[in-house]
Amino acid sequence: MEKFNVGILLFDDVEVLDFTGPFEVLSRTRTVPGAESRRSEDAAPFRVFTVAKTKQKIRAIGDLIVEPRYSFADAPRIDILVVPGGWGSRTAMQDAEVLAWVKNVATTARYTSSVCTGALILARAGLLAGRRATTHWAAYDLLASLDGGVKVVRNARVVKDGVFTSAGVSAGIDMAFALVEEICGRAVADETAHYIEYARH
Amino acid sequence: MEKFNVGILLFDDVEVLDFTGPFEVLSRTRTVPGAESRRSEDAAPFRVFTVAKTKQKIRAIGDLIVEPRYSFADAPRIDILVVPGGWGSRTAMQDAEVLAWVKNVATTARYTSSVCTGALILARAGLLAGRRATTHWAAYDLLASLDGGVKVVRNARVVKDGVFTSAGVSAGIDMAFALVEEICGRAVADETAHYIEYARH
Repeated sequence: MEKFNVGILLFDDVEVLDFTGPFEVLSRTRTVPGAESRRSEDAAPFRVFTVAKTKQKIRAIGDLIVEPRYSFADAPRIDILVVPGGWGSRTAMQDAEVLAWVKNVATTARYTSSVCTGALILARAGLLAGRRATTHWAAYDLLASLDGGVKVVRNARVVKDGVFTSAGVSAGIDMAFALVEEICGRAVADETAHYIEYARH
Repeated sequence: MEKFNVGILLFDDVEVLDFTGPFEVLSRTRTVPGAESRRSEDAAPFRVFTVAKTKQKIRAIGDLIVEPRYSFADAPRIDILVVPGGWGSRTAMQDAEVLAWVKNVATTARYTSSVCTGALILARAGLLAGRRATTHWAAYDLLASLDGGVKVVRNARVVKDGVFTSAGVSAGIDMAFALVEEICGRAVADETAHYIEYARH
């Protein structure tokens, strides 16, 4: 099976569930139902990995320490880009190297997505101009202020308008399932939700 | 504010959301509502950290690489023990050092809990004898076979019977909220769910 490469961006003060929700969903998706198919990667449509500026350890919010799998310099081709949020997005959205990388990856990725305030980074990279998009409820106004062209959708859980964006934190799980459904169909998304015992929104 | 120390056990092939769900919920709980209170630890009732046998890097399922904050040897007092599951629980449940540590911590902890197949580890440590408990749907029979005294509750999301146990993977988020509600009250749990945009079960 040809697999989609999923690159999840990491940075200091990333919100834990923002990146681990999509990591869980996409890394545990299988096109064969049941628990046994989860014991190998054979029926996995996605190959999920983390990427950061460098391979230095990342300190996520709450001091969870994660080692990025790849740096910007050695990351493989990314078919699906996931940009999480968290307080660290306020720094990342002003980091020219991060913005250039995100913009560059999005140019060739088949899907670009964000969770929570990851949308701020996408907006600053110019990827939300003219699009409908959402973010954490505490950041609606900030997102709207960044880019005159973004149409901020309030009180939506997942917004698909070329780019996939989601509401805060746990909504990234639903965003990931929206990607699974788009690529693998409804049955695969629903069966994976059953496997991780998640009631999709 | 006196804080509860929350120790989350890590081991190789731990399921990502099993441990990051409770990490997210407990580390982002605040007794003061709103986004601003999340910028510091002042109103945080929990101090959350990961613990493993050693400080060697842990490879969670899907190859997420996490560095444990503490080893068994240097972990501080644990008030709330969280034992996640995942395929690695099958190895951890046969590891005498892990079982002895879990049993010892549970003796002095105020709360002992598991997510998903973490219940297998608690059962093997003798902590579920005579109690109602649940686990991932694929492990009901295995849990029942481990310990004649455990009353396996099927199709429950969270079971509280001295020990807090939960169904699979994402149900650990609800288990964590059950702990928050027990310790800090319903309003704090609901406000934290609102902050991470999670619809509690």
